[in-house]
Amino acid sequence: MKTLNKYWFAGIVLATIFAAFPARADNDALMQLIEVLHDNGTINDEAYEKLRAAIALDEEDEPVATDKPVLERAAETAEDPDPPARVDFAGRKLRIESADGQFGFRLGGRIMTDAAHYDEDINTLGSGTELRRVRLAWDGTLSRDWAFKGEIEFAGGADLKSTYLDYVGLPDTYFRFGKYKEPISMEELSSSKYTTFMERAMLTELLPGRNVGLGAGRSGERWGLSAGLFAGLEDGEEEQDEGLALSGRFHYAPWHRPRHSAHLGVSASYRDMGDSQAIRFRARPDSHITDTRLVDTGVVEGVDNVAWLGLEAALVADSLSLQSEYLAVGLDRFGLSDPRFQGWYAYGSWFLTGESRSYDPRDGSFGRITPQRPFGGGGPGAIELGLRFSRLDLTDEEVIGGVQDNLNLGLNWYPTPNVRFMANYIKVLELDRPGSEFDGDTPSIFQIRGQADF
Amino acid sequence: MKTLNKYWFAGIVLATIFAAFPARADNDALMQLIEVLHDNGTINDEAYEKLRAAIALDEEDEPVATDKPVLERAAETAEDPDPPARVDFAGRKLRIESADGQFGFRLGGRIMTDAAHYDEDINTLGSGTELRRVRLAWDGTLSRDWAFKGEIEFAGGADLKSTYLDYVGLPDTYFRFGKYKEPISMEELSSSKYTTFMERAMLTELLPGRNVGLGAGRSGERWGLSAGLFAGLEDGEEEQDEGLALSGRFHYAPWHRPRHSAHLGVSASYRDMGDSQAIRFRARPDSHITDTRLVDTGVVEGVDNVAWLGLEAALVADSLSLQSEYLAVGLDRFGLSDPRFQGWYAYGSWFLTGESRSYDPRDGSFGRITPQRPFGGGGPGAIELGLRFSRLDLTDEEVIGGVQDNLNLGLNWYPTPNVRFMANYIKVLELDRPGSEFDGDTPSIFQIRGQADF
Amino acid sequence: MKTLNKYWFAGIVLATIFAAFPARADNDALMQLIEVLHDNGTINDEAYEKLRAAIALDEEDEPVATDKPVLERAAETAEDPDPPARVDFAGRKLRIESADGQFGFRLGGRIMTDAAHYDEDINTLGSGTELRRVRLAWDGTLSRDWAFKGEIEFAGGADLKSTYLDYVGLPDTYFRFGKYKEPISMEELSSSKYTTFMERAMLTELLPGRNVGLGAGRSGERWGLSAGLFAGLEDGEEEQDEGLALSGRFHYAPWHRPRHSAHLGVSASYRDMGDSQAIRFRARPDSHITDTRLVDTGVVEGVDNVAWLGLEAALVADSLSLQSEYLAVGLDRFGLSDPRFQGWYAYGSWFLTGESRSYDPRDGSFGRITPQRPFGGGGPGAIELGLRFSRLDLTDEEVIGGVQDNLNLGLNWYPTPNVRFMANYIKVLELDRPGSEFDGDTPSIFQIRGQADF
Repeated sequence: MKTLNKYWFAGIVLATIFAAFPARADNDALMQLIEVLHDNGTINDEAYEKLRAAIALDEEDEPVATDKPVLERAAETAEDPDPPARVDFAGRKLRIESADGQFGFRLGGRIMTDAAHYDEDINTLGSGTELRRVRLAWDGTLSRDWAFKGEIEFAGGADLKSTYLDYVGLPDTYFRFGKYKEPISMEELSSSKYTTFMERAMLTELLPGRNVGLGAGRSGERWGLSAGLFAGLEDGEEEQDEGLALSGRFHYAPWHRPRHSAHLGVSASYRDMGDSQAIRFRARPDSHITDTRLVDTGVVEGVDNVAWLGLEAALVADSLSLQSEYLAVGLDRFGLSDPRFQGWYAYGSWFLTGESRSYDPRDGSFGRITPQRPFGGGGPGAIELGLRFSRLDLTDEEVIGGVQDNLNLGLNWYPTPNVRFMANYIKVLELDRPGSEFDGDTPSIFQIRGQADF
Repeated sequence: MKTLNKYWFAGIVLATIFAAFPARADNDALMQLIEVLHDNGTINDEAYEKLRAAIALDEEDEPVATDKPVLERAAETAEDPDPPARVDFAGRKLRIESADGQFGFRLGGRIMTDAAHYDEDINTLGSGTELRRVRLAWDGTLSRDWAFKGEIEFAGGADLKSTYLDYVGLPDTYFRFGKYKEPISMEELSSSKYTTFMERAMLTELLPGRNVGLGAGRSGERWGLSAGLFAGLEDGEEEQDEGLALSGRFHYAPWHRPRHSAHLGVSASYRDMGDSQAIRFRARPDSHITDTRLVDTGVVEGVDNVAWLGLEAALVADSLSLQSEYLAVGLDRFGLSDPRFQGWYAYGSWFLTGESRSYDPRDGSFGRITPQRPFGGGGPGAIELGLRFSRLDLTDEEVIGGVQDNLNLGLNWYPTPNVRFMANYIKVLELDRPGSEFDGDTPSIFQIRGQADF
Repeated sequence: MKTLNKYWFAGIVLATIFAAFPARADNDALMQLIEVLHDNGTINDEAYEKLRAAIALDEEDEPVATDKPVLERAAETAEDPDPPARVDFAGRKLRIESADGQFGFRLGGRIMTDAAHYDEDINTLGSGTELRRVRLAWDGTLSRDWAFKGEIEFAGGADLKSTYLDYVGLPDTYFRFGKYKEPISMEELSSSKYTTFMERAMLTELLPGRNVGLGAGRSGERWGLSAGLFAGLEDGEEEQDEGLALSGRFHYAPWHRPRHSAHLGVSASYRDMGDSQAIRFRARPDSHITDTRLVDTGVVEGVDNVAWLGLEAALVADSLSLQSEYLAVGLDRFGLSDPRFQGWYAYGSWFLTGESRSYDPRDGSFGRITPQRPFGGGGPGAIELGLRFSRLDLTDEEVIGGVQDNLNLGLNWYPTPNVRFMANYIKVLELDRPGSEFDGDTPSIFQIRGQADF
């Protein structure tokens, strides 16, 4: 109550007083109000001078008989040296910002609860439930030009997600030091809060994910570029020198207007493996509750360096959208074969209730869905249908990791912008992994999710 | 100061001006001020136009040609699209609520530090200290009708406590999806912040605790009903199908008025064990610092299903209260004996300083104690004496888990509503576990706790 | 809009109206407005009745029969029973305080990202990166006289740092129960956010660190005293009785004025080892990314009790400061030799940009650096040079843990008070550990850190 109310009290009292003496030279009051508005920054110097002149013209009365107007003195003396911060739920997330805009803090998180039923074929998968993601995230601004972010995953212990320090003092540009996702693949870089299906397409299992790095990014109205140097994959041991990767992504939107966008993107990464010369790729079947991976390269040894190449395309046309990616990863090994693994997916999404997927052309990713007629406000919320084909090919040279084709049919219900229920039916169409117990294993999966983000 | 104050300042300025200059010709300067406020974004186009019109009308000395007063319209149109949230410590917990009541967020937690001295008898228990509970919890409201909660236990790593999504759009009713306590037993469902003794009575060790489930609850002024379907016990492995349980509780307060309440409750649960056919029950001796369990069934194999039945009764009469429960759990095994384990406890509590235990008839549990004369305000705080008898019988058929009887004498001091100090003296009266090293082991225990919740 | 804005709106509307129509008959409309405000909950019953009465009086053209203006009474009575809390970024940390000052809550944390290059000599150290510290911390006030603190380290899981309950009802004094650092050594007790070098001097590895304890402290303008009883070292097993230590520290500032301080301190601790009779001392080489310890006593068995003695001195003279400590730890063993280990360090720091290290004479530690001309405001930020010599001697009697001498050259850049970049060049000058693979191993290390605290 200290500061804000004091201001207001001063305002009300003075307003009342000024208003209550209508028989006086009323431009004194007006002038003083203008003084206040000027002092508190509501009007700038130029406007202030113009207004002063207008009043002078308006009335050639006497100046106020004090060196400072009453109002200003009242405001001055009531002023707290550290004015209260502003608190709101802008962007549907708790946000606190200092009065001068120099400091900010946001706190948020997500809760996703899953249940899956596995219609098993050859191997057991284990129907059941899990808290898929329970995260707390915080980010903020320090002295306007610096920003930080931290995020913890509490499902299954406590695991650090993106955690970094940014310099944001230049327009449309950031410099970043910390742990974050290497900039490869639209599907990977879109938040799990907004992905169309419960699990990302299998090709993201080929990616290096989050690593400690030093990078930068720049964006324009319809494009974005980001690149960084990233240290070793997380499994490296402490006594080994970590590897180093250079990763980058460029994306461009040929067009972007409300409810209509097109997206093209390309990303690449080259990684020197350092002392750790081992890498492994494997993937769950579009479902996370099971620990079984139908495709798995096992640990591939003797790796000198690894290169990634990814291609992205997406299209939003009103309630319909299409998205597709291709990703290849090539291993360069010491005196051994150089296998290459790859994956691709394509999917369509359709909002039965008329919404449109929300594309961010600066970030090259998709964001929050806001139902046109939310449930609770008399409407049905937003309803989305999706169909995805996804392939992961982990077989090359003498590595027989397997080839898997999945079909994924999804139904999403967004009663409000922060709540989502998802149902996915997954059919493993083909599982080609000769010599393995998983060869020919084509289970069906039905799974649901309840999701809140705040 | 950017938004809130500007808008309010605009409001005051305009209110004052409109009120104070009803028939004067100062409107040239006023109009210029409005121009400035419009140009710098303090008032939007619509408000600007209306104000222009109002001034024009005003100058013509006519009433404003609309059915709404000028002021109200100005406020309406000048309104910030995202007004500041309200922050307070209602319920002695940090609470932030959006101006429109659609979004809310609370952050809280608890810290409990324990020290125990074991007067050992046969086996070593290990006197010492621990941070018993260090939790952060957050809950909130999303678009008014949806709610979420998350809670992490940091004592000994990071462990997810109750974490779920609620639909609360119907009066007195919730629908829940997530991880939470199966609704069995008043002692289990009362928060550890408010239980009379440092540790819950041993029978709660028979309970399934928190599991992922889908449930609902409804309450009236003096009753509550909750039920849910819950997935497997946490120890299940990933490749096994989890079991499924149906659990429910009904409670009723024959009477409930200030300082006088009576409570009756019954709960039941039936669980199909799924692929995991193993279950284990064991209990510490009313003290958590030791890891020794005097009674322990070991892993009981071959379990097809398990059924629980619990009975509850409590009485609050001014500063005195009584509470008692009985719980039985029966195992149905494949081609093996079907043992049944059980426990009960009864305790009395007396506030020497005149407070009364706070019963919540909708929730069927006990809550926060508010000292009548807090320490710090010149009073002694609240002082409570408690005495509990507790039995756990884990011996049936060929399972010789043991029978334990404990007496627990407790002294609690609540200097303020958020702080509590506890001292418990526990005497193991009987330990009957033939053939075990623990048979006849009847140690005494003295332990203390310092507790803050926020 | 529910609470705050409505109240203010009522205030403004009523102020304006009462003031503007002192003798007019517009009270019909006014009364209708008040009705509306009452009906929609903006003003409560009491305020409503008072306002009705005020209008009645007004209409009779008489002054209001009270010694308070109508407005003030309206505000008073319309006031919410739980007024909004104050939110700010005082101390550059988010702080929320209840209107009455009884409750407070602060949320903060730190993020430190490191990268190190090891110029190895004999043994491999493993160049790489890490999130060195990612912490969330919260503290607060309960009913004015009680305080709590919790802090979690998320780098490498979730680890509880200082977590306790304080009684602060007496001036300049605290009583504490919980887990916190035993009060020994200025270097140890200064926050890692403010230490001059990336890692604390090696002698801190001799210290007991944070343990559950019961203690108290008192401070004056230029001195501080703290002492406590602390339970077992964290590695104790659950079935063993924990040990108990009495630890204390006294510090005194011979002089302390802006930019000029002198500090002297002494600390001591005596620990009975309880059932755990084993202790181990070892240290990384001023760098944390490697897991290699060049000096290591191994587990020393048969320890009855341990005693610590520490001496501290520091001097701040404008932009220059000096700091030095000596620490010895003596082991008393059952029927075995009683080795004594020791360490010392001395360092100088110089701010090229004119800042002065911020000494807290009540706490006997150093705090936050505030750049005189922050980067972003046109200045260079603060730039600090430091040079430290550090020795750790873990060789005594038959324990050959090794003797290590390090030189550490540091360069710190503080663009703003909450952001710091550090670079350290460390040269192991001598490594004397006969019979070990580490004997004579004198690597060079270059490491950097990006740090944000909020």
